[in-house]
Amino acid sequence: MGFSFLPKESNFFILFSKQAEFAVTAAALFVEVTTKGIYDEETVRKMRSIEHQADEVTHEIIERLNKTFITPFDREDIYTLTKELDSVIDMIYTITNRMRVYKIKEINLDLVEFANVIEKSVHALTVAIEGLKDTKRPQAALDSCIEVNRLENIGDNMRDAILGKLFDTAKDPIYLVKWKEIFSFAEEVLDICEDVAHVIESILVKQA
Amino acid sequence: MGFSFLPKESNFFILFSKQAEFAVTAAALFVEVTTKGIYDEETVRKMRSIEHQADEVTHEIIERLNKTFITPFDREDIYTLTKELDSVIDMIYTITNRMRVYKIKEINLDLVEFANVIEKSVHALTVAIEGLKDTKRPQAALDSCIEVNRLENIGDNMRDAILGKLFDTAKDPIYLVKWKEIFSFAEEVLDICEDVAHVIESILVKQA
Amino acid sequence: MGFSFLPKESNFFILFSKQAEFAVTAAALFVEVTTKGIYDEETVRKMRSIEHQADEVTHEIIERLNKTFITPFDREDIYTLTKELDSVIDMIYTITNRMRVYKIKEINLDLVEFANVIEKSVHALTVAIEGLKDTKRPQAALDSCIEVNRLENIGDNMRDAILGKLFDTAKDPIYLVKWKEIFSFAEEVLDICEDVAHVIESILVKQA
Repeated sequence: MGFSFLPKESNFFILFSKQAEFAVTAAALFVEVTTKGIYDEETVRKMRSIEHQADEVTHEIIERLNKTFITPFDREDIYTLTKELDSVIDMIYTITNRMRVYKIKEINLDLVEFANVIEKSVHALTVAIEGLKDTKRPQAALDSCIEVNRLENIGDNMRDAILGKLFDTAKDPIYLVKWKEIFSFAEEVLDICEDVAHVIESILVKQA
Repeated sequence: MGFSFLPKESNFFILFSKQAEFAVTAAALFVEVTTKGIYDEETVRKMRSIEHQADEVTHEIIERLNKTFITPFDREDIYTLTKELDSVIDMIYTITNRMRVYKIKEINLDLVEFANVIEKSVHALTVAIEGLKDTKRPQAALDSCIEVNRLENIGDNMRDAILGKLFDTAKDPIYLVKWKEIFSFAEEVLDICEDVAHVIESILVKQA
Repeated sequence: MGFSFLPKESNFFILFSKQAEFAVTAAALFVEVTTKGIYDEETVRKMRSIEHQADEVTHEIIERLNKTFITPFDREDIYTLTKELDSVIDMIYTITNRMRVYKIKEINLDLVEFANVIEKSVHALTVAIEGLKDTKRPQAALDSCIEVNRLENIGDNMRDAILGKLFDTAKDPIYLVKWKEIFSFAEEVLDICEDVAHVIESILVKQA
C-alpha cells in the first residue's frame, strides 16, 4: 500500500463537502416529490442515482482512510461520520422507493411537513460539516448541531401526533401499516442526522 | 483542551453509578405504570424527566472521555457502556410514550410481567457496574452478567408466547399491530441490557 | 491475564472458518425447511443448536481477541467480523422461530427463492473468509465480496416485488403483517452478509 505525503486533510474535507451536497440534493428531491405526490419509476430512478453517486464518495472516503497514515481527526470519527451521512441518503431513498412499492399516489401533507424538516436538518448538517475545516472557530458548527437536535425533537413530536391520528381514525389496517412505516422511516432520517451531528460535536470537542 | 491530572477513575465510576441509578428509577416507574395501566401525559412527563437527566450524565461521561488522557478501561468500552446504558432508559421511555400515543388504558398482565423482568435485569446491571470498581474480584459482576443473559432468554420466550397468542386470538388487526410493537420494544430493552452486560464482561476479561 | 507467544494468526483463521461453516449449515437447513414448509419445534430446535454452537465460537474469538496482544488484522475488524457473522446465523434462527410462532404450515415459493439467495451469499462469504489467510492474493476474496453485494441488490428487488404483491393482493391484514415481517427479516440476512463482506474488503485493502 502506498502512503502519499501530500496533505490529506483537504482531500477529506472536499469529500465530506461532496457527500453533504448529495444529502442536500436528496432532501430537496424528497421535498419535491412529496409536494407533488408522485412516486413513480422515474422519481425512484433519480433518487437512486443520487444515492449511488453518494455511495461512491463514501467508498472513496473509506478507501482513503484505509490508505492514509495521518488523518485530520480520529479515524473512528471519520469512519462513523461518512457512514452515518451515507445512511441519511440511503434512508431518503428507501422511503421514496417504498412509496412506489406501496403505489401511493396521494399528497400527504404530514409527509410534506416531514420532508421540510428533513431538508432543514440536512442543511444544518452541511453548515456543521463546513465548520470542521476551521475547528478553532467552532461556534457556527456547534450551533448547527444544536439545530439538528432541535429538529429531531420536532420530528419525534410530529411522528407521535401523526401516529396518534392514524390509530385514532384509520379504518383500513393495511393503510395504517403502510403509513406507520413511512412515518417511522421519516423520523429515522432525523435520528440519523442527529447521529451525524453527535460525531461532529465529538470531533469539535476533541479539537478544542 | 486542558488535561486534568486528578484521578479520573473515580469520576467515571461515580458517573456510571449515577447513570445506572436512573435506569433503576426508569424501570421502577415502568413497573408502576404498567401495574396501574395509566399512560397519561403526567406519566410520560415523569419518564421523560428521568430520561433527560440520564442523557445529561451520558453527555458528561462522553465529554469527560474526550478530554481525559488516561481512562480506567478502554475508551471504546467506556463509550459503548454509557451509550448502551442510555439506550436502556431511552427504550423504556419510548414504550411508555408509545402507550400514550396509542391511548392504551388497560392493564396488560403480560406487559406487567415484562416490566418485572426488565426491572430485574436493570438491577443485575447495577451490581455488574458496581463490580467495575474492583476488577480484581470480578465474580459478583460476572454472575450478574450471566443473570442478565438468562433474563434476556426468558424475555425471548415470553415475547414468542405472547406473539403466538396475539396472532392466534386477535380479531382486530389494529390491536395486533399496536401490541406486537409494544412487546417487541419490551424485548428490545432486555436485548440492550444484554449488550451492556457484554461490554462489562469484556472489560472484566481484559482487566483479569 | 496471560499472553501466549504461540502464533495466534492460525487460531483466528481456524475459528473464523468454523464460524463460517455454521453459517453454511444454518443457511442449508433454512433452504431445507422452507422447501418443505415445516416450521415445527423439531426444526427450531435444530436451528437453535446451530446458533448456540456458533455463539460459542463467537465468544471464543472475542475472548481470544481480548487476551491476544498481536492480532493478524485490526482488532476492531476482527471484532466486527465475528459479530456480524454471528448476526447472520442469529437472523436465520429468528426467521425460522418466528415462522413457528406464526404457525405457518405452507410452502411459500418466494421465501424458498430468498433462502436460495441467502445460501449463495453465505457460500460467497466462506470463500471471502478463506481468502483472509492469504491477503497477498486477494482476488478470489474480493470477487466473492462483490458477489455478496450483487446478491444483496437482488434481495432488495425481490423484497420490493414481494411487498408490492402482498399489498396489492392481501385481503387479510394479519396475513400481511406476518409475511411483511418475514420478508423484511429475510432481506436483512442479506444486508448483514453485505456488512460482513464490507469488513473483509476493508481488511484486504489495509493489508494490500
